[in-house]
Amino acid sequence: MGRAAEHKQGLVRTAMRLFRRQGYASTGLQQILAESGAPRGSLYHYFPDGKESLAEAAVELAGTRMRDTLAELAAAHGEPRAFLRAYCRTMAGWMEESGFRSGCPIATTLLETAPVSPRITRAGQRAFSSWIEVVAGVFARAGMSKRESRRRAGMVVAAMEGALILARVERSKRPILDLATLF
Amino acid sequence: MGRAAEHKQGLVRTAMRLFRRQGYASTGLQQILAESGAPRGSLYHYFPDGKESLAEAAVELAGTRMRDTLAELAAAHGEPRAFLRAYCRTMAGWMEESGFRSGCPIATTLLETAPVSPRITRAGQRAFSSWIEVVAGVFARAGMSKRESRRRAGMVVAAMEGALILARVERSKRPILDLATLF
Repeated sequence: MGRAAEHKQGLVRTAMRLFRRQGYASTGLQQILAESGAPRGSLYHYFPDGKESLAEAAVELAGTRMRDTLAELAAAHGEPRAFLRAYCRTMAGWMEESGFRSGCPIATTLLETAPVSPRITRAGQRAFSSWIEVVAGVFARAGMSKRESRRRAGMVVAAMEGALILARVERSKRPILDLATLF
Repeated sequence: MGRAAEHKQGLVRTAMRLFRRQGYASTGLQQILAESGAPRGSLYHYFPDGKESLAEAAVELAGTRMRDTLAELAAAHGEPRAFLRAYCRTMAGWMEESGFRSGCPIATTLLETAPVSPRITRAGQRAFSSWIEVVAGVFARAGMSKRESRRRAGMVVAAMEGALILARVERSKRPILDLATLF
């Protein structure tokens, strides 16, 4: 990867991490620049529209990474209950590692900006849809209808989003681990 | 109610509304003062610690109101499925009325501040606990054990929190209404 592409990726990764932990509004471009180590020029070159376009890219990247994680879990745990257990263990592990400071990588930004920012909102739609699609695949492979698989997968993703909020507030993995027996 | 108490309540209600819609970090004390109509002196009199203590009071008020709503729904719909349907319909109605802009009245603030602000985090814990307690009561009255009622109620509240995020991003009531058949 060239240095320019590295700078771009560094900016997006840093934005993703800071938005996840401290929110969109309270994260300034100065902090993102400083912590990413990218030169100022690269920020204006790659993200001429500023923070909103950086947030769109951050939601996109976080969405893709989470979908990849879900796809790995689905490949390793084909049966719905085993998949749910593995999903819960993985998310609970991340939450604990971060000292209950980092929850869903896109929820805070989305709650601060959706639906007012159409770009960030659309990136969020794509992310959630891709996660739901992977989870629905697990239910479908267990013999459930396409419609029911999609509906259950939507509930699983919603319940996990909410459990990640409760876990931060309670400083406990329990709300996440409880979902292992949702279905 | 005296004018002073009215000013205090106005400040908290305005803060609650603005934090819910646009988030904690992007809401300034100036906007809260202007929209509440309270005199500047009352802000510093009632909330000498500034925005954090106002957010604590806003989370407290939103938590109490939501608990009261849940208690009314539980009184009117004793059977768990009927209660769940009524809960979903109420939340979906609020979401639609706000043009998909106002979700959970405390989630955004909590994601921006928990667990870094202990005061706001504790107010959030009290709010979620009180909601879970009301929902658990519905399951318990249907004959479920105390432990299982509490566990299911936690999942219901978590799933609703997540569904409110998905609904804003999708600009659709569907993620909320789907939860009617969670249990």
